[in-house]
Amino acid sequence: MLAMPEPKAEILARREEIVAALVARLGAGNVIAEPLRLKPYETDGFTAYRRVPLAVVLPETTAQVAAALKYCHENGIRVVPRAAGTSLSGGALPLEDAVVIGVARMNAILEVDYADRLARVQAGVTNIAITRAVEGDGFFYAPDPSSQLACMIAGNVAMNSGGAHCLKYGVTANNLLGVTMVTVEGDILTLGGDHLDAAGFDWLGLITGSEGQLGIVTEVTVRILRAAEGARAMLVGFGATDVAGQAVADIIASGIIPVALEFMDRPCIHACEAFAHAGYPLDAEALLIIEVEGSTEEQDALLARLQAICARHAPSTMRVAATAEESLAIWKGRKGAFGAVGRISPDYLCMDGTIPPGRLPEAMRGIGALSEQYGLQVANVFHAGDGNLHPLIMYDANDPASFDRAEALGADILRLCVALGGCLTGEHGVGIEKRDLMSAQFGPVDLDQQKRIKTAFDPGWILNPHKVFPLVDA
Amino acid sequence: MLAMPEPKAEILARREEIVAALVARLGAGNVIAEPLRLKPYETDGFTAYRRVPLAVVLPETTAQVAAALKYCHENGIRVVPRAAGTSLSGGALPLEDAVVIGVARMNAILEVDYADRLARVQAGVTNIAITRAVEGDGFFYAPDPSSQLACMIAGNVAMNSGGAHCLKYGVTANNLLGVTMVTVEGDILTLGGDHLDAAGFDWLGLITGSEGQLGIVTEVTVRILRAAEGARAMLVGFGATDVAGQAVADIIASGIIPVALEFMDRPCIHACEAFAHAGYPLDAEALLIIEVEGSTEEQDALLARLQAICARHAPSTMRVAATAEESLAIWKGRKGAFGAVGRISPDYLCMDGTIPPGRLPEAMRGIGALSEQYGLQVANVFHAGDGNLHPLIMYDANDPASFDRAEALGADILRLCVALGGCLTGEHGVGIEKRDLMSAQFGPVDLDQQKRIKTAFDPGWILNPHKVFPLVDA
Repeated sequence: MLAMPEPKAEILARREEIVAALVARLGAGNVIAEPLRLKPYETDGFTAYRRVPLAVVLPETTAQVAAALKYCHENGIRVVPRAAGTSLSGGALPLEDAVVIGVARMNAILEVDYADRLARVQAGVTNIAITRAVEGDGFFYAPDPSSQLACMIAGNVAMNSGGAHCLKYGVTANNLLGVTMVTVEGDILTLGGDHLDAAGFDWLGLITGSEGQLGIVTEVTVRILRAAEGARAMLVGFGATDVAGQAVADIIASGIIPVALEFMDRPCIHACEAFAHAGYPLDAEALLIIEVEGSTEEQDALLARLQAICARHAPSTMRVAATAEESLAIWKGRKGAFGAVGRISPDYLCMDGTIPPGRLPEAMRGIGALSEQYGLQVANVFHAGDGNLHPLIMYDANDPASFDRAEALGADILRLCVALGGCLTGEHGVGIEKRDLMSAQFGPVDLDQQKRIKTAFDPGWILNPHKVFPLVDA
Repeated sequence: MLAMPEPKAEILARREEIVAALVARLGAGNVIAEPLRLKPYETDGFTAYRRVPLAVVLPETTAQVAAALKYCHENGIRVVPRAAGTSLSGGALPLEDAVVIGVARMNAILEVDYADRLARVQAGVTNIAITRAVEGDGFFYAPDPSSQLACMIAGNVAMNSGGAHCLKYGVTANNLLGVTMVTVEGDILTLGGDHLDAAGFDWLGLITGSEGQLGIVTEVTVRILRAAEGARAMLVGFGATDVAGQAVADIIASGIIPVALEFMDRPCIHACEAFAHAGYPLDAEALLIIEVEGSTEEQDALLARLQAICARHAPSTMRVAATAEESLAIWKGRKGAFGAVGRISPDYLCMDGTIPPGRLPEAMRGIGALSEQYGLQVANVFHAGDGNLHPLIMYDANDPASFDRAEALGADILRLCVALGGCLTGEHGVGIEKRDLMSAQFGPVDLDQQKRIKTAFDPGWILNPHKVFPLVDA
């Protein structure tokens, strides 16, 4: 288990005074302090850790966020920002002496502008709601995390979220035009905007993926894109995972950019097929789902090139969807993968490392060897095209030793990603989960520079403390 | 004229000692101190301002850059980083008491990796050299500033450079995977890498466009892309600039993303036609050059949709290139635009503001009114698709009052961009040119936060001083 900070006794002792001060600033309706109503906020999507916070505030305006932050800053009270609480790295995990500031009530779509191809929304709008608002006119918002029905845009910005289609369209950072952010001092900053580029330092890049360490985002302007005319998927099975990995590397090297390029290994294929009956080949060791989009002619041309590349690796199965319906059936299995693995093993850790796509075969062999070494089953399902791995490590939550072993295996897998020229996280963020591994990626000089930036925004280090920056050396 | 700092007398007095110390660290062959050899470094592409530096060093390795920076930092000597010196905003303008650290000798292409679609190069490699290294295999590096034959990748990173084709492919920030950067303290940082995303704060975003304020970049890893099968341009003339602006807004609103969407007004059309004989319509008040790419079928389909949109605005001319050669002829005029305007007026200021593309008609009318008010001719040629304006303000360099009026007109045009929801700079950077206008865009709270970040990297403020951050309020 990861080390968690002791709550500050003097803050716990001031609970009533703090709640009263927050009520005075935000109104009783926007402050939660009753233990039973606090309980739902004790964890996020990384459910292995739980802490009931001191209080939760749910502001309705940017000014209220500023008032809450300013009060906490002036009183040295820790703050944990929260959007939908779907973080898989514990990014929204509370602390017992912290005030959670949640943006869930700020959920209005403020503006859609097709001439400038943008949508301006409040921070608590869900990812899918942006696409829903513009799809009638043939547009969409590209990043599509698996949690997109629930997750909110503020959390997407905080974690720089991706999704299956970010191979072609990029992650949140590539689709963000501007944010309104409140600093711990209660200052309201407008970063980026409706225009190209920015004068001065590009804070937008810095804020994206900053995991609630630098401020709280209350409004977001995103790029919306024209939806393609159509899309079609193909499905290719291989007799060995590293051969499939080589096929992925060859596709990327050819310069083709499919809209999605997903990978599943045998345990995952079987789990998904049992769940979704998508017609996956049960004899394959690895399965690729490749999707292309555009006009029918474009789809045909790209699918023909992809078939030629895959054919060089002696696939055991190769099936191109003839219709949009067949494509949907192929995707159904993939989209249900996490749930399907949950039916084999209710408890699993979902890891999130990245590697350069050319190193995929080595990564597959390495993960296989580590899985054997630790005696824990690992199912692999991930965004292969951009090298974003999601090994699912199965363990038994009733056996604490099994959880500790799963955490240790996960850490070794992430160290392997770094050793292959990759990174600790592709889209889930560092949070608390990967906090103690940061020094596997960064040297003391890098970390020291990162801490200077943190201090420039949050001199008292009250924002989302004990996350991102390592407590101990890995 | 903009205020320039007085050189520090104590530094000028130590010239010999400083040169000797630099020679001891980098070798005599990498240090320039003779007045005649320093002269070529007195200015950059923003030639209105000139200062001969104290010395120029041209390191050959990252370690030498670190040694030079560390020495200057420890001795309080100002440093002006330089790549090719093509900056249009005075970003590489020296100071008399500063050491210029240039990366021009670090010009090796270190690695090309098609499986991971990247190229790793030293900071002094020219923009075009990256494409030259991979085009034989059907790949290219997307950002294409007009200066691409000369400008170097380190300068592209410092200014977040764009180009005519960044409407589709994005600016430098969207094509950058990693950098090696040296801090003023001589620490060597590796930011980003071969992989997707990054753990911790996204420094890559922060460094891109930071204009030499935070460190010196010595190595750069960029994404390379597969070249399209082919491209074709169309040319559309309109009877009024704001009608052309509305056509641009409609194209963007339709969701079509041409690979380029360029705009010229009447003065520019005439200058370019006289220069390049590209067949531009001399009766038009505004001309759009629109380029699409892909397979022949894709090109046809997109060009048909574009023609339908343009036809709604009663164009005076509409011509689609039948062949790649005709496309080249259409582009020839555009690519020579700055030179062509130089034949009408040898002296002009090239401005660089951005606006949301939907506000283009208002921007055109506003610039026209300002041009009349100041009594100076303005030619407009710019990247209309992403709202990146390049008004060329013609003046007489032999008349100082005319230059002052041109500067004042330029400032008013940029204020207009900000008022329309845009930004001071799209791709040229703030440099010294727009330094005193920063407070037209940012309030004191924003600027103070920006300065905190500067201080976190450069506590003594020795890096590229008196640029970017305003000396006086606008």
